[in-house]
Formats: sequence, C-alpha cells, structure tokens
Amino acid sequence: MTNRTAVDTEGAWFEPEGIEELRRRLPIPYVDIVPVRTDLDGSVVEVGLLLRADGGGQIVRAIVSGRVLIHETVREAISRHIEKDLGPMALPRIPVSPVPFTVAEYFPTPGISPFHDQRQHAISMAYIVPIDGETAPQEDALEMAWFGLDELLAEPSPLEEMTGGRDLIVRRALAYVGAT
Amino acid sequence: MTNRTAVDTEGAWFEPEGIEELRRRLPIPYVDIVPVRTDLDGSVVEVGLLLRADGGGQIVRAIVSGRVLIHETVREAISRHIEKDLGPMALPRIPVSPVPFTVAEYFPTPGISPFHDQRQHAISMAYIVPIDGETAPQEDALEMAWFGLDELLAEPSPLEEMTGGRDLIVRRALAYVGAT
Amino acid sequence: MTNRTAVDTEGAWFEPEGIEELRRRLPIPYVDIVPVRTDLDGSVVEVGLLLRADGGGQIVRAIVSGRVLIHETVREAISRHIEKDLGPMALPRIPVSPVPFTVAEYFPTPGISPFHDQRQHAISMAYIVPIDGETAPQEDALEMAWFGLDELLAEPSPLEEMTGGRDLIVRRALAYVGAT
Amino acid sequence: MTNRTAVDTEGAWFEPEGIEELRRRLPIPYVDIVPVRTDLDGSVVEVGLLLRADGGGQIVRAIVSGRVLIHETVREAISRHIEKDLGPMALPRIPVSPVPFTVAEYFPTPGISPFHDQRQHAISMAYIVPIDGETAPQEDALEMAWFGLDELLAEPSPLEEMTGGRDLIVRRALAYVGAT
Repeated sequence: MTNRTAVDTEGAWFEPEGIEELRRRLPIPYVDIVPVRTDLDGSVVEVGLLLRADGGGQIVRAIVSGRVLIHETVREAISRHIEKDLGPMALPRIPVSPVPFTVAEYFPTPGISPFHDQRQHAISMAYIVPIDGETAPQEDALEMAWFGLDELLAEPSPLEEMTGGRDLIVRRALAYVGAT
Repeated sequence: MTNRTAVDTEGAWFEPEGIEELRRRLPIPYVDIVPVRTDLDGSVVEVGLLLRADGGGQIVRAIVSGRVLIHETVREAISRHIEKDLGPMALPRIPVSPVPFTVAEYFPTPGISPFHDQRQHAISMAYIVPIDGETAPQEDALEMAWFGLDELLAEPSPLEEMTGGRDLIVRRALAYVGAT
Repeated sequence: MTNRTAVDTEGAWFEPEGIEELRRRLPIPYVDIVPVRTDLDGSVVEVGLLLRADGGGQIVRAIVSGRVLIHETVREAISRHIEKDLGPMALPRIPVSPVPFTVAEYFPTPGISPFHDQRQHAISMAYIVPIDGETAPQEDALEMAWFGLDELLAEPSPLEEMTGGRDLIVRRALAYVGAT
Repeated sequence: MTNRTAVDTEGAWFEPEGIEELRRRLPIPYVDIVPVRTDLDGSVVEVGLLLRADGGGQIVRAIVSGRVLIHETVREAISRHIEKDLGPMALPRIPVSPVPFTVAEYFPTPGISPFHDQRQHAISMAYIVPIDGETAPQEDALEMAWFGLDELLAEPSPLEEMTGGRDLIVRRALAYVGAT
C-alpha cells in the first residue's frame, strides 16, 4: 500500500494491483462534488477547495472526488466522500435528485475530452453540495479553504491550481447556479 | 378586495381589476414549489401539501405557488411564497440553481396543456424545496400535511385532491428525485 | 460464448468470465436511451420499444441500453448502442448535453433501488433521443415498435412488459418532456 | 410605431404604449435561444449569433430572443422567434423538454442580476436549439454568422460584442453542453 497516492485514499478497497487491472478494462464510475456555502436565499457565495498533493507530488487545489464502490448507491458515495474529505461535521445537504449538473469524462490520453486522469478512464457525475457545518481537512489534505466568487473569478484564480480540467467542473457549477 | 380568492393572496399587490386586465394581455410568471422532507442522504421521504379553498369554494390539496412580482428575483419569490404559505419557521433550503425541474404552462382554456387555470395564462417554473423547520398553515389554508411516498402512490391518493393538473407537478417531482 | 444473452451483445468485448469477474468488483457504467418520435415543435408523440428475449428466456419490452466501454465517450456509447439496436438508418439526434435526464442505479439485490439487474451493479445515465430515420430490429430483437402516448398510458400498457424497473425510465422520460 | 426598436419586432402585438404600461407592472416572460450547429454525435461545433442594432443605435451581437405571448406555448414561442430571426428554412430541432438549461433574469436596474434590460424586468428561460437548415438574417438583423468554439473562446471574442449580460447565456450554454 506504499504507493497509494493522495487522491487514491478510500481505505481498504482493493490492493493497488487489483484496481490497476480493473482500470485497464472498464471506465470507473466516479462522483465529483463541488462544496459550496450559500446565502439564505440559496445563492452560492463561496466554493470550498482542498489543497493536497496529487499522485506526482505536485500541490494542487481539488474538489471532493472519488469512486462509487460496488453495491454502493450514488447518494452513499457522495456522503462517504464528503465525510472522507471534509470531516464528519460538514453537515452536507445531499441533492434531492440523482441528476448531476454536469458529467466529466476523464481519459488517460489527453485531448479526448477536457478532462484528463493519467491513472484511468473515469466517468464522473458532478454535484453541487451546500455545506452547513464545519469542515476540516482530512487525511493527507493540507488545507480546506473557502473562496468567494470574486476570488474565483480574479486573476490569478485558485482555479488555476487545479489539474486535469477539474477547474472546469467548478466553472460549470458557477454557470449552473447562475453566478457567472 | 372582497372577491380575492384563497389562492390569490399576495397582499396589496394590485387591485383585482388591475391584475385582471394584465391577465388578458400577458402570460403571468409563476413559481410552483414542492415542499419535501428528506433523509440525511437527500432522499425525499415526504411531500407537503396544503389544504385550502380554491376560488370556487372547493376544498383542494395544493402546493406552494404564486406570482413573481415586478423587480423581484425568482429566489425572492420562492422565499416569499414559502413564508406566506408555510410560515416563518419553515427553514427552506432554496435551490442553488435557478433551473426548474419542470415548467408548467397553465392556460385558461383546458386542453392546450395538462395544466389549467381559469383565471390566467401562467408560466410556472417549478422547484423542489427541502423544508428543515416547522410549518404551519397560514392565512386561509386549512391544513398543511406531510405525506409519505407510500401514501402519495396509494389509491386513493391525496394527489387526486389537487386540481388544474397540479398533481402532475408533484408526480414529476417524484420522478425527478428518483422516487418513482 | 454460448451463454451470452440477448441483452449482452456488444460484440467481442470480453469473454463472459472476464466481465463476470469485473461485475463482482465494480459498478458498470451504462447508458439507457429512450428513443422517441417528435412533432415539429419538439413534442414527444411516440416512444420506441424493442421486443426481445431477456437472459432468462422471457420475452420483454426494452429500451436501448448498454455499457460504456473503456476509452469510449458517452456520446460514442449512445451512438453505438442506437446503431446496434435500431440499425444504421435510425438518424438519431444525439443530445447536445452529456447531462442525463435521470440516473438509474441497477443492483443485483432487489429493493436497494427501484432498478434491478441480477447480473450486475450498473449505474446508468439515461437520455431521450429523437429518431428521425427508419428503425429495424437488429440481432436478436424480435420487434421494434412505436407506441403513442395514449397507448403507453392505457391499461394494460406495453410498459408493463418491461422488467427490472426499466418502465420507470420511460415514465420519467415522459415526465421530463412534459407529456405526463 | 416609429420608436419600435430592432429587438422589439414581434409584429402587431401591442402598441408601444400598451407594452410599456405592462412592463411597469409585471415581469415579462421571455425565451432566449442559443442556435448551434452540431456534429453527428451531438457535439456542439458552432454557435450562431445575429448582428443587429439595439434600441440605442449600437451594433451588437445577439442570440434569438423574445416574449412569450398570451395564449402561446413556450414551444410555439421558441419556433416563432427562430423563424422570425433565422428565417423559415432553419429547420430547428426544438428541445423535447420544456426545462431550460438556464434562467436569465433581466432587470432594468443594473446590478440586481448579471442581466440588464433597460426596457423591462424579463424572466427568460434559455434553450439550446440545433439548427439543421439554412439561416438568413431577417428584418433588421444585419448578419447571422456561425462561430466555432475556438473563435468564441479567443480574445477578442464575438461574445464581447453582446450586451446586457447576454454573452453569459452563451457561456452557460457552452458549459452545459460540455464544450468548456
């Protein structure tokens, strides 16, 4: 388990050699979650981004993300990954509908889509999840920070510190909620 | 103001003759709101229905509904109608996105669409709103009751006590959240 | 290859023992496609259903459905499965957005969700696809028939000949397009 | 009728004084339509923009846009405005669902939302409509041009020639279809 990466920390799921074999044969179902703080009227005012080391040792900004496991519902996967990344006091409001606001297709070969993940072909359904409670970086995340819309849209923006096209998921979320 | 109906109670907006004139000339922008109770994982477990007199003296089940006023945002209209119908302690979670889960077009002539409102042509954007707090029937509503999914899908169902096709909005909401 | 079933005909993808091993370890990404005929104004007037033998020898109605393969985009999977099931002259209008209108989670254990597939845990993104061309049943489908909304909503309905909860996908599609 | 503007050309609907009176009292229901050209797999490859004089004599880029009239369905409004702006040979594929991909709220006072229309408070449901046929600028439009995604995302972009925040509708459309 020594070569598990920071973004591959789902506890005792598979030995690395097992998941690597699967990744060569099937697209991996994922969920991507954009944590947000909202006003009382539902307007998004802040987006939460993690700061963590990616598999290659680079420090990057990231949203909450991870696999859907066998026999797990998408709702369970969303809850599990939020608790894993934001801690048990986050009080997320899981969406009432399983319909994602966007779908990100990550390919190991760059250029097939705007999303790239050298480890795998992942099909990720993305959700916006308001967080009412307190968040704390978990496991190997270095920080969890909330950014106002102005900060996200400024130059330079923390979105530029995201990799693999994941900033697009945040940008699409901002478009979907009507913030941009 | 003596001929204001139970479903036309937005306070001092227009004299009835004013709104009647407008209704002959323009579609009226509306919001329809399906109040729900959810599990911690976001699953819808109950839907809230009002019991009220409609304009013709019939007792009907209804969802939260009403006009968007001039200079009012859709979010403000959603908040205002929830407070008007469910009271100030409802603690609604207003959706993060302005995109409705369905659009209901009410016509004064039956048969043009599944929705009918003899008073007007209304274009209603419909939203599902989880309610975390306490609700109480307001103004001329007789009751506000929560129904489990089993009750809604049983025969007879309280949805059959809705008029003008409004039961379809609840049915579409249940489809959208994946309950049916 | 003798035990490949009617709904498992994607050409030379895996030997059955390979996919069975994968199915024990990962949710399988799927697409479900509801073929429709529309009026000029975009209203859905008919839904296309296949008649085919399921894996157990039962004759059932079905929508177009199948896996997303490794290195394949969701759009490519939609196109491929439509051609596989409806033939090369179907002229489908693939949706402009990858956002599904619903997500169906099939579990091998009944009761976890409304959807059941004894072979696997599949996560299916569902799309409505207008068909402009000519369709013909392919491979082991016995028939491809178009049903008007009245027929679908009548009792008995061809939707009752669908299994595993797949009729719900058609019902959700009808709700989403505003037909019911 | 001499003071009708280029973006106010819906034929004999109201005398200007009539609509001006209504605009002071009600939000006006609108549709905004983003015309697109797609690949066979549904991917958006081009967006169509009109070049026209706005009410103040400025030359601007615009999408197809206009009111929903009394007794008119949203589908009819979409069809009518496309024919009005793109001509009778456009062969639009009107969406199967009435659910818009975004909602734009135009206020006469700048700053309440990202959208501004000095004439009125308009609530606009926005749709992406693939165009299969030939388009020609109608009435007082000067040009109808198709722009590839690269051109739209370049600097300077034709989107900067749009006013009132309407470029955001195109940007949200590109996010919704997964192009950005």
